[in-house]
Amino acid sequence: MNSPLSPLPDPMSFTPPRSGAEVHAWLRLARSRNVGPRGFRALVTRFGSAEAALEALPGLTTESGKRFEPAAPGAVDTELERARALGARLLCLGAPEYPALLAQIPDPPPLLWARGAPGLACGSCIAVVGARNASSTGRRMAALLAQELGGRGHTIVSGLARGIDTAAHRVSLASGTIAVLAGGLDRVYPAENADLAEEISLNGLLLSEAPLGEQPTSRHFPRRNRIVSGLSRAVVLVEAADRSGSLITARLALEQGREVMAVPGSPLDPRAGGCNRLLRQGAALVRHADDVEEALGYAGTTALRVAHWPDAGDAPDAPPEPGPRDMAGDAGPCTPDGATPLLTRVEALLSHTPASEDDILRQAGAPPAQVLQAIGELELTGRVERRPGGGLVLAD
Amino acid sequence: MNSPLSPLPDPMSFTPPRSGAEVHAWLRLARSRNVGPRGFRALVTRFGSAEAALEALPGLTTESGKRFEPAAPGAVDTELERARALGARLLCLGAPEYPALLAQIPDPPPLLWARGAPGLACGSCIAVVGARNASSTGRRMAALLAQELGGRGHTIVSGLARGIDTAAHRVSLASGTIAVLAGGLDRVYPAENADLAEEISLNGLLLSEAPLGEQPTSRHFPRRNRIVSGLSRAVVLVEAADRSGSLITARLALEQGREVMAVPGSPLDPRAGGCNRLLRQGAALVRHADDVEEALGYAGTTALRVAHWPDAGDAPDAPPEPGPRDMAGDAGPCTPDGATPLLTRVEALLSHTPASEDDILRQAGAPPAQVLQAIGELELTGRVERRPGGGLVLAD
Repeated sequence: MNSPLSPLPDPMSFTPPRSGAEVHAWLRLARSRNVGPRGFRALVTRFGSAEAALEALPGLTTESGKRFEPAAPGAVDTELERARALGARLLCLGAPEYPALLAQIPDPPPLLWARGAPGLACGSCIAVVGARNASSTGRRMAALLAQELGGRGHTIVSGLARGIDTAAHRVSLASGTIAVLAGGLDRVYPAENADLAEEISLNGLLLSEAPLGEQPTSRHFPRRNRIVSGLSRAVVLVEAADRSGSLITARLALEQGREVMAVPGSPLDPRAGGCNRLLRQGAALVRHADDVEEALGYAGTTALRVAHWPDAGDAPDAPPEPGPRDMAGDAGPCTPDGATPLLTRVEALLSHTPASEDDILRQAGAPPAQVLQAIGELELTGRVERRPGGGLVLAD
Repeated sequence: MNSPLSPLPDPMSFTPPRSGAEVHAWLRLARSRNVGPRGFRALVTRFGSAEAALEALPGLTTESGKRFEPAAPGAVDTELERARALGARLLCLGAPEYPALLAQIPDPPPLLWARGAPGLACGSCIAVVGARNASSTGRRMAALLAQELGGRGHTIVSGLARGIDTAAHRVSLASGTIAVLAGGLDRVYPAENADLAEEISLNGLLLSEAPLGEQPTSRHFPRRNRIVSGLSRAVVLVEAADRSGSLITARLALEQGREVMAVPGSPLDPRAGGCNRLLRQGAALVRHADDVEEALGYAGTTALRVAHWPDAGDAPDAPPEPGPRDMAGDAGPCTPDGATPLLTRVEALLSHTPASEDDILRQAGAPPAQVLQAIGELELTGRVERRPGGGLVLAD
């Protein structure tokens, strides 16, 4: 913990950057030596802004006596240039489009680079994770589960690793998938998943808190895993050896107050050891999507399942205050229960440049029928217009 | 339920037959039409003895109006002759050698035919049961588990069926195994297990409540299963499809207040469906013997495990009143916690005909070192003598 101050401010009430200069300062502070997620929040709170914190930084030390060192402004410029080239945008802690569940963990990343549809992270997210050296049964199980959950409107979150993660992402490309990378968004690991990552950036969402250009190393993975579980209402462990890294994800998820679930396996199969251990420790046993939803408190009927997606009655009268459109996401605010009002989400996906209905359907993170209904409602109330050719735009 | 009377008497205080004539009457009453285990107890309690109940029987009807019909005395003679030819003996409800845990179920068999070492049923018994069409992994798991549990002094109880049961019996022949048959002791099913049954009669214990000569039919199996669980402190389900017969055993075990445990398996393997369902319903997850003992409340240390076997200090001053030696078992009294004082058990295994130390070690149902210590103690106190050649006999 790098925080020189405590207690930490409520991340939900954190004020995000409102200008390009502020974004630059946030990024520079976040990239400064010995400034971690907790330290970032503490510094900004103490000094009132990232710029002020950067000025004060050379005179400060961490609780353990280490010196802070502001990042070079040029390095931040370089990172912003890489982002522009890659089409990546920043999600900033406190901004309405920042994933609400993630903001609730003890150490949310102050900044996340995103490629794809940030709205996905505001839907009902479920992490499906497990062993890299998964068996074919394990991979099949991950695919079945992710497909079932996707079909019920849940977004699948995983870490783009070989094995279970890859299987879970592949089948949920159409329904909604989020990959959290350990290194920079432009440093996909493993390299064999470069094409999958590209598909996810087009149809799903790639996220990373690491600086662009950063190669992933072993120290990045536990930090990445806290984001996987932090985004998710539940973490389902599909196949994992005893004492494997996946158990760390499970522990982090428990510390974050998230549901931990596991798929059982034969005790004679070492790749089931971690799952069986979790089950003995009280994790919910998962055979199929019904079990996941039951553990999440669903009654298991379609009526109740659909009710999870908020209907039009939940939409506020005024659209939320947007973050800086040029850099930050624009997928509408996330609510703490992981379900942003759908009308707001759909509206936030639109601008004065025409967007195709297909894109909105893909990015809204909700069942298509619900999204179509929301679009219809926005058209009826005059907030959205359909241009010749079908493109959707915000009304003036 | 055939009981014309209620409430039923405490089976632990039930008076067993004390003569050959009484044994004959018990067997005849038990074999009478429409007299089930509960009816047997109610009738003997109401009329004071099996003989009196048999006299009254023609004038009585069951609660549902069915007529009782006393069995033909000749059929009982035939059954007793078959028993003598087979070397089977009767364990009678209320007798000290009747398995104490079994006596506590709601409908204990009034009579059990036994071949082998009845003392085994008084040790710590654990049922290992599962699918007949088990996978090789399932059979391997059953064998590993039964072997581990046997090595820790537990007796393995199962149903001699193909698959899981067979695997569990085979590996526990040396440490202690009990097979409960659905049909008569002389009608081993499946036939392919005839040799295994013979080995069990020599090294373990074969039990059945069915009349000798009775072919097993489907209606016998659930009744047999209640005995498998009734004898046992815990029932471990190793591999079982969803909605299979093994789940009935699990339900019976729960109704009997016994621990129900299950070995997990992949949800993609239908043969794990029953186990995984039980696990979701709260059964303890079993990976190895440690898990079984932990669920039974063992702290997992050798010291505590050995303490389960009562030491010499538990032995009563006087040997228990024996049942009729010619027909009934003679393995000493069972205590309700499933652990008969070892000295008593060992003494009950001896007679005035020399027995080999090996046989006693095999039949006592306790770790060999403990049995040797008990034999030594009995020799020191003069209750047992060692004949030239090593045979052990009761002292005059």
